[in-house]
Amino acid sequence: MSKNISFIDGLEGILKYREIDINQLVELPYDAVSYLLIMGELPGDQELADYSARLRGEREINREAIDVIRMCNFNIDSMEALRTIVSFISQFDPDINDNSPEGNMRKAIRLIAKIPTIVAAYHRIANGKEPVPPDPSLSHGANFLYMIRGSKPSDLEAEVMEKDFILSAEHELNASTFSSRVTASTLSDLYSAVVSGLCTLKGPLHGGARAEVMAMIDEISSPEDAEKYVLEKLAKKEKIMGFGHRVYKTYDPRGVVFKQLSRQLAEAKGNMYWYEIAEATERTVIRELVEKKGKPIYPNVDFYSGVIYKYLDIPPKLATSIFAIGRVSGWIAHCFDQYEKKKIIRPRAFMLDEC
Amino acid sequence: MSKNISFIDGLEGILKYREIDINQLVELPYDAVSYLLIMGELPGDQELADYSARLRGEREINREAIDVIRMCNFNIDSMEALRTIVSFISQFDPDINDNSPEGNMRKAIRLIAKIPTIVAAYHRIANGKEPVPPDPSLSHGANFLYMIRGSKPSDLEAEVMEKDFILSAEHELNASTFSSRVTASTLSDLYSAVVSGLCTLKGPLHGGARAEVMAMIDEISSPEDAEKYVLEKLAKKEKIMGFGHRVYKTYDPRGVVFKQLSRQLAEAKGNMYWYEIAEATERTVIRELVEKKGKPIYPNVDFYSGVIYKYLDIPPKLATSIFAIGRVSGWIAHCFDQYEKKKIIRPRAFMLDEC
Ligand SMILES: CC(C)(COP(=O)(O)OP(=O)(O)OC[C@H]1O[C@@H](n2cnc3c(N)ncnc32)[C@H](O)[C@@H]1OP(=O)(O)O)[C@@H](O)C(=O)NCCC(=O)NCCS
Ligand SMILES: CC(C)(COP(=O)(O)OP(=O)(O)OC[C@H]1O[C@@H](n2cnc3c(N)ncnc32)[C@H](O)[C@@H]1OP(=O)(O)O)[C@@H](O)C(=O)NCCC(=O)NCCS
Repeated sequence: MSKNISFIDGLEGILKYREIDINQLVELPYDAVSYLLIMGELPGDQELADYSARLRGEREINREAIDVIRMCNFNIDSMEALRTIVSFISQFDPDINDNSPEGNMRKAIRLIAKIPTIVAAYHRIANGKEPVPPDPSLSHGANFLYMIRGSKPSDLEAEVMEKDFILSAEHELNASTFSSRVTASTLSDLYSAVVSGLCTLKGPLHGGARAEVMAMIDEISSPEDAEKYVLEKLAKKEKIMGFGHRVYKTYDPRGVVFKQLSRQLAEAKGNMYWYEIAEATERTVIRELVEKKGKPIYPNVDFYSGVIYKYLDIPPKLATSIFAIGRVSGWIAHCFDQYEKKKIIRPRAFMLDEC
Repeated sequence: MSKNISFIDGLEGILKYREIDINQLVELPYDAVSYLLIMGELPGDQELADYSARLRGEREINREAIDVIRMCNFNIDSMEALRTIVSFISQFDPDINDNSPEGNMRKAIRLIAKIPTIVAAYHRIANGKEPVPPDPSLSHGANFLYMIRGSKPSDLEAEVMEKDFILSAEHELNASTFSSRVTASTLSDLYSAVVSGLCTLKGPLHGGARAEVMAMIDEISSPEDAEKYVLEKLAKKEKIMGFGHRVYKTYDPRGVVFKQLSRQLAEAKGNMYWYEIAEATERTVIRELVEKKGKPIYPNVDFYSGVIYKYLDIPPKLATSIFAIGRVSGWIAHCFDQYEKKKIIRPRAFMLDEC
């Protein structure tokens, strides 16, 4: 029997992909974790080299896709453009009508490889600059930052970007993954299934929270203000973005790693400012909700990752799209599983309330 | 309490939208049925006039959308282009970030109004012709055929097209509607939810069957050949496209109407050929499966609608996109219902097998 794509223990705060704890997985390259999710096993050295080479060889997007990006509206979030371009390029994939496992694997590689290029090209063009072609000598994370900036990131920045993609890659049947599966269950093609995931990730109750954390950190003007900000929000019965989780009733294990990474980045950059705002926010939320009220409201995956994006100079408008760069491997792993089931997901109306 | 969006009795062969039998609804204009689905009640005369006027006023698509259609790949099915353009135009909707009920209603009108224009422009450009601008004096169905052909359809053709849209508009929690709801449940915008529906409808186990029926009718070269074709397929244990249904265990009530309409069209055109092929196919399937084996395998919604498309000179490549023109009102009705629930659809893994 194939290993479960992921395993969550919400009380102990444990997350595994294919039976391997994420604390081990963050030590690997993103490509290895992507391979693990999709193939079900960690790659050997040669398998990883081949898989990485395939990904690096497929990063470029066609000229027409760049032309359509130039026609996009840059005043809104980047997700509509990303969704549009992924849908557009499907038409030029030579395997579009080949739904064999091999054809699907070729499409999977292209999707994982090209999504970062689309997001980076969008960002460059939105800022009046020319897109930077991908550099096949760089890792998934380093290449993305390079395409965004036009210059190579530091080793630490590249490492943090890789780990962000890894920790965002998979989380069982979250809404976007579930919608990818529903799409795949009709034997619709892999691009359609990934576009369906993008449509769903965009929602503010799902992938949209990371950008809201970034906005909140900007709103809290100093670490001293954080306490006041939190108390005011709670007094108005408003939720603090980036805290709480439907499944985790303890510290989100991804949040633990993100917190540590954001501290490292802050120290390396000699600028503790955003980190201290975040920590003061966390301290107040934990004192008010966990200690005083006994509610299990800890930082979730979106809180310190939002802080990391601030240090990586990533604008909030890209936050959900970058979440998608990591998550696409998880969506594809679930679609492959769904394709094997050959059974359409078609609940009757009375089942709707169970989900 | 609001009326159920649809009701299916699979044993009696009954389908109702908002408690009204589809045999009554096919006597109305598509706009009235669209209003019924979305607003929950049939419109009065003035309400219908206003709703139709709003739809007719929003049929045009922007020049950029036409430019992107010109860049599409016309050698594949039309669904990837439709999905891409719907996603693209969302960026220019002034209400893209307004998720209030009023903002959503304005987006709903635009989606229902513009999807036929996109499909028709795609078809014209794919055939080396210029798009035909919509004609606000024509009904939803008549205008679509006019934009496809560049000349006005006969009254009967327009009526058949309207009824096709009506009968395709809604069918409870089919896979595409369910995926639209999952997307809407994260409070993602209405365009994202409709694109998610398009991604899912495309699958050959779902909306894709209609095009396959059309291919089958071409493959059966004469009414005399139909029996042989069916017997050979059944001997090979292959399924006959356009027959059988997960829910209906009797004649699909939509199939009854479609059969009658296809006969009317055939007679009006003085060409019984495709109708007779279809009828001979049906007769053989019923004799072999229903009468000899007691299996409840009758024509479903896709069988005679495929025949109708042959008489309307619609190529198989457009079949699923035309299904979407009708279905978008149903998707939107479900999304509005989902937005009110404000609850994310996030099953745990063990629930997957229940759907
Ligand atoms: C994620 C979330 C929807 C989980 O919700 P849930 O498991 O249904 O938990 P509940 O909403 O029932 O929360 C339990 C209690 O904690 C409170 N609470 C939960 N999250 C809170 C937050 N972020 N800030 C303040 N209070 C919060 C609730 O108000 C509720 O209080 P009550 O018992 O007095 O009514 C919720 O925590 C949230 O909205 N968080 C903020 C948005 C966010 O970061 N989303 C990204 C998730 S990865
Ligand atoms: C729609 C469909 C998936 C419904 O499937 P279902 O309710 O799960 O029904 P089953 O597949 O269990 O069918 C029951 C029996 O009828 C047979 N059967 C069902 N549809 C058949 C068809 N179209 N042609 C021949 N035999 C068929 C099955 O082989 C099965 O036979 P068995 O009991 O000897 O194994 C199925 O009828 C089908 O594939 N139809 C053709 C495709 C199509 O038109 N799809 C559009 C649906 S709107």
